[in-house]
Amino acid sequence: MTAAATRPATTRAHESTSQPGTAGDAAAFLRDFRSLSAIGETPGHGVDRQAATPADAQARAWFTSLAAQYGFRTETDRIGNLFALIEWNPGAPYVLVGSHLDSQPTAGKYDGAYGVAAALHAGRRLADRAASQSPDGGTPPAAPKYNLAVVDWFNEEGCRFAPSMMGSSVYTGKLPADVALAVTDTAGTSVRDALTEIGHLGSGFGPTAAAYAEIHIEQGRSMEDSGTTIGLVHACWAAAKYTVTVHGEQAHTGSTVIADRKDALLGASRLVVLLREIADHFSGAVLHTSVGQLTVYPNSPVVVPSRVELVMDLRTADEDILASAKALLRAGIAAIEAEANVSIDVAESHAWGINPYQPAGVALAAECAAELGLSHRQVFTLAGHDSINMKDVVPTVMLFVPSVDGISHNEREYTNDDDACAGVDMLTRVVERLCNGDLDGAAAPEAGARPEGTK
Amino acid sequence: MTAAATRPATTRAHESTSQPGTAGDAAAFLRDFRSLSAIGETPGHGVDRQAATPADAQARAWFTSLAAQYGFRTETDRIGNLFALIEWNPGAPYVLVGSHLDSQPTAGKYDGAYGVAAALHAGRRLADRAASQSPDGGTPPAAPKYNLAVVDWFNEEGCRFAPSMMGSSVYTGKLPADVALAVTDTAGTSVRDALTEIGHLGSGFGPTAAAYAEIHIEQGRSMEDSGTTIGLVHACWAAAKYTVTVHGEQAHTGSTVIADRKDALLGASRLVVLLREIADHFSGAVLHTSVGQLTVYPNSPVVVPSRVELVMDLRTADEDILASAKALLRAGIAAIEAEANVSIDVAESHAWGINPYQPAGVALAAECAAELGLSHRQVFTLAGHDSINMKDVVPTVMLFVPSVDGISHNEREYTNDDDACAGVDMLTRVVERLCNGDLDGAAAPEAGARPEGTK
Repeated sequence: MTAAATRPATTRAHESTSQPGTAGDAAAFLRDFRSLSAIGETPGHGVDRQAATPADAQARAWFTSLAAQYGFRTETDRIGNLFALIEWNPGAPYVLVGSHLDSQPTAGKYDGAYGVAAALHAGRRLADRAASQSPDGGTPPAAPKYNLAVVDWFNEEGCRFAPSMMGSSVYTGKLPADVALAVTDTAGTSVRDALTEIGHLGSGFGPTAAAYAEIHIEQGRSMEDSGTTIGLVHACWAAAKYTVTVHGEQAHTGSTVIADRKDALLGASRLVVLLREIADHFSGAVLHTSVGQLTVYPNSPVVVPSRVELVMDLRTADEDILASAKALLRAGIAAIEAEANVSIDVAESHAWGINPYQPAGVALAAECAAELGLSHRQVFTLAGHDSINMKDVVPTVMLFVPSVDGISHNEREYTNDDDACAGVDMLTRVVERLCNGDLDGAAAPEAGARPEGTK
Repeated sequence: MTAAATRPATTRAHESTSQPGTAGDAAAFLRDFRSLSAIGETPGHGVDRQAATPADAQARAWFTSLAAQYGFRTETDRIGNLFALIEWNPGAPYVLVGSHLDSQPTAGKYDGAYGVAAALHAGRRLADRAASQSPDGGTPPAAPKYNLAVVDWFNEEGCRFAPSMMGSSVYTGKLPADVALAVTDTAGTSVRDALTEIGHLGSGFGPTAAAYAEIHIEQGRSMEDSGTTIGLVHACWAAAKYTVTVHGEQAHTGSTVIADRKDALLGASRLVVLLREIADHFSGAVLHTSVGQLTVYPNSPVVVPSRVELVMDLRTADEDILASAKALLRAGIAAIEAEANVSIDVAESHAWGINPYQPAGVALAAECAAELGLSHRQVFTLAGHDSINMKDVVPTVMLFVPSVDGISHNEREYTNDDDACAGVDMLTRVVERLCNGDLDGAAAPEAGARPEGTK
């Protein structure tokens, strides 16, 4: 479905202009980004635009309206991925560039949204440039090899509907569309019904991809700490994620003697503490461990909990450390079961090794940054992105701009305007080169286990 | 409203028959109790009859139907307490006897329900006995001093609508009716609307009480361990309950370095573990500590929790131990705040000292058990009951029957039929003596801080 086109690369566009955007380009980008930031705004100056909610629908309307204004036509595929298309070379595949407009329940304004707004403006500039090269409206003398599609991937966050990265997982064939459409939220509404309700359940498979580019805020502080404007993402940390159920037995909190209790919440709490202790066991902040979700049953003030469900997340750049951490976890869980008088079911829901992007893409991005005079360095991504799905099927470039204090999944997330605008310049140049086929033939990376629909 | 009548006690009924129930009485009780147990039955052979739900309404219909069959008229007060009344002495106050028909979400069949069924059958036997003493239908020669009201207290459990013991708290003037009626469940439905919907929002203050009796399963194993049939409840354990909010800061689980995290769930988990450590600090099972309810925000797999709300519960028969435990808790919380990089707000929601029942009531119950040849001993209640509200306004007798393995707030709760029927015999005799004024003038107990609407 998404096999990269095989025409040999040319260096045609490499020779084209690589100037940064004008002051007008920056102003236009910031204006559009600010109007997006107002959609689903929370009292804490963040956003709440969970997938296929009215706020998400409003963000998607922002997208289609601007796309039309900038000369793109839009289409929606069978899982609600939204594409803005411009065709320079009829019948040729598309370079896809984008990110996601959906958000966590109380999220910052940059996560995903920045990447979509930047992609739309990169597309606008390239479309303007192509049009200016053919003032008579005829075929431009040097039409790009590939067409261009700006994309808003459906449900990257996965908080309303699991798993995350749903739209790109379906697009890349990693997740069957029917399975994704049947997923329900906690109110019992399916993805299919939610998309239908907001009028965004489309059809078909979307445009055929030749390459992919995405830009995102770092969600960490390595770039800010090193004074770097552009991060060239070369790999994703290794990760292991588990869904866990702690089984105890319901009892009266007041009257049941401690020795008789099988307190599922005590077992779960010891597991949360254990996971932090495992992170602290390794010096140098090389392992991140988390429990973000934990639900207690029956959750009554006067009932000893009978069941707790939780999600554990371990991430590291070192696969040996991950293996050691897993061993510590196994031993710790056995101890908790014995000491807290509970049983613990652990299922590994996702796992992947160090997951590299194509080195040729990193090299191309480094060239673009150098041309534009932007400081740059290779960085890991610790979080998942739709680009992790895309890089497994087409040559992909993943870029970061700095995030102040590394704050992420938080209403206070912030990237300064200069960095945000430099990122748009950078993305524009990268996409221009991808449209000219400069990454054609980049080998698919050697990946660990595929991160299917996870972030 | 509920001042005890002041007529001097007589010993008239003391001289009356104190025989146990007949085989027919036991069979009738078990038949009615089993029909009640089928209402709101869960797949795990327990019940789900949360307050003012359709299942609760069905249990209340069971009550009114049997009450009519046994010669009582029924009325409902302004907070949904349901009374079955029989008047032997026009204008005199009533001995109230009962418990509650509502349950926890996955509860056993005995908690509350046994006490209401036993009260209805005690009332039936006494009504039959009174009627048989006046075969010509005229005024019986030795009418009891007080009339009799069997009661189903509204919302004792407090799981759908907080606080627990709501009906008896309003009846005894400890909780304003308007405040109780305005309480909403998690779906936003008020007590007023929920009662109206099931047709059980009554009016007025219910009958005036002269005394109160209640029977319940033990919710502990002291009686089973000692082979005792009847528990004479002499006091409620001291308790302290807290509502706690742990404040952290939202962040990305994958990308945020551990040192930057303010993980509210880590802080909450350490608090759960601390509370158990405090219980273990005292030998001899003298302190019960629990966290039954814990809710995580935003509760997304990929977001470090920003806030956790939980409820802590400490109970003991020794007020010195409670004071020591509170000091350990304060010190532990300060350590957790520092070490887990969170802030913790703690509010004491309820607290009471050792809370005794009237010794005269305990003595009267001991006499009744001896007359009936039933083994008996004084026991604490560790859980709250509506009788704890009632004993503060009228002379009150609280009785227990054994519960197999002490299981409570659990679908596997079980009391064998012989013990259940012995309890009905016992309750019948106690109520007969209360109706004859044998506890008149029993002093109100010296209580600690009033347990307002809590269990």
